[in-house]
Amino acid sequence: MNNAHAYLINGSFDATITPLDRGFAYGDGVFRTLKVVNCVPQHWPLHYQKLVADCSVIGIVCPSPELLMNDIVQLCLPNETVVAKIIITRGQSERGYMPPAITTPMRVMMKRPMPTYLPEYTNQGVTLHVCDTFLAAQPKLAGIKHLNRLENVLARMEWSDPAIFDGIMLDTESRVIECTSANIFARFGKELLTPDLTQCGIAGITRQIILDTAHLHQLSAKIAPISLSELFSADEVIISNSLYGAFQVIKIGQHAWKSAQLAASVRKYLKYEQ
Amino acid sequence: MNNAHAYLINGSFDATITPLDRGFAYGDGVFRTLKVVNCVPQHWPLHYQKLVADCSVIGIVCPSPELLMNDIVQLCLPNETVVAKIIITRGQSERGYMPPAITTPMRVMMKRPMPTYLPEYTNQGVTLHVCDTFLAAQPKLAGIKHLNRLENVLARMEWSDPAIFDGIMLDTESRVIECTSANIFARFGKELLTPDLTQCGIAGITRQIILDTAHLHQLSAKIAPISLSELFSADEVIISNSLYGAFQVIKIGQHAWKSAQLAASVRKYLKYEQ
Repeated sequence: MNNAHAYLINGSFDATITPLDRGFAYGDGVFRTLKVVNCVPQHWPLHYQKLVADCSVIGIVCPSPELLMNDIVQLCLPNETVVAKIIITRGQSERGYMPPAITTPMRVMMKRPMPTYLPEYTNQGVTLHVCDTFLAAQPKLAGIKHLNRLENVLARMEWSDPAIFDGIMLDTESRVIECTSANIFARFGKELLTPDLTQCGIAGITRQIILDTAHLHQLSAKIAPISLSELFSADEVIISNSLYGAFQVIKIGQHAWKSAQLAASVRKYLKYEQ
Repeated sequence: MNNAHAYLINGSFDATITPLDRGFAYGDGVFRTLKVVNCVPQHWPLHYQKLVADCSVIGIVCPSPELLMNDIVQLCLPNETVVAKIIITRGQSERGYMPPAITTPMRVMMKRPMPTYLPEYTNQGVTLHVCDTFLAAQPKLAGIKHLNRLENVLARMEWSDPAIFDGIMLDTESRVIECTSANIFARFGKELLTPDLTQCGIAGITRQIILDTAHLHQLSAKIAPISLSELFSADEVIISNSLYGAFQVIKIGQHAWKSAQLAASVRKYLKYEQ
């Protein structure tokens, strides 16, 4: 992929990001990562709705869906499957935390290659690490995909073993919250449980779809706190994000599960077959 | 100030920041804000030492002091007093939280105008707001001046009254930690107390100087937790940062102090007279 033509800033190939952009200076912005197939962003209405909601939490007016779709169509080619990353910042301001009364948000649309996922992730499942880096509780920012992601970076730096696919992040009370780049679900019998994200974590749109369609898998969905030992006692554990849909978890530390079918069923519904 | 020539990226006026820079993508970097008088950065050894230490916490190798000083000399003019802002990011990488095995840090040196401080701030003191936005506890990032500053932005957005100079930020246990852009000190008799910053907050270099030189003001320095009601019972309260040195606090909400002399003594020592 030619990096020089792999992104648009405010719809332009020539615009640049300056150090006065508040996204760069303070992480004052939000983002989304989504799969684009043949120029069609997957689950676009949910992604756009979430982008608007996340912008709104920190007081940014989200650019119109038409502007963003125009960017996608300009960047992407027919017959390719790529990752689009959308970043919306509050725009430029003079130095200092106070935003000006009127700001012009900046939008970045990037096209990146799809990550390569091993066939065994789809056929069997993935192994997770349990991260030492915990997620701090900040209810004013919980759930939104903002640009302050140093906790995720530090957590992801904890392992380099390629056999480990992602890492579970806990909160300060040692409750399971999410993975560094995924949400997490545990099935107990007919109940599908995912952690509460009102104190920390990112509520992804794939998580939302899985919650909303749990009945299609004959499950009832529940949002509730869950400890690591409770997670280990689950019948199945799956993780989800917008790029791979869902993967079965077969190992966390010393605890192993047999491969099972929930992630495959979810992927089938999401149309995220490899 | 001509913005077009107000910053250098890796020592160049022509370099740009791309969306693949991890400072922009994740706030994966640190910064410093300092006063430069006649091309001479004030308290440079302490600033540089802190920059190196902060970089080290998140695993970035800080550029050499010579590179940074060259940037300052290139940007600043004799006979001007300006603000220099240094930003060091982990550099560029492909999308994803994991940094590559080898990264080349990016350095940004910006020159900005000094803020204008009213004479009454120096002669009398300043009024503070108490922020609703609290600082989340994250010991792995506490004390360092990293680029994840959304909490400070949200806190600063809480007031627009120009009579309020800064806002006190508390932690989740309602302990006083700092202001959005300053450290805070409370004098009780002969003891000068400043909050512990091992769970959250930024440990500024002016705070360090004030702690190290408390004896010059016949005070003993102490780092300890402090509640808002304890702060209200202090004989004097001052706030500090690298641009104004120190200001006396004369009002927080309904609680008022008579103007006093500690901030003036500190400024005199710091040579930060207006």
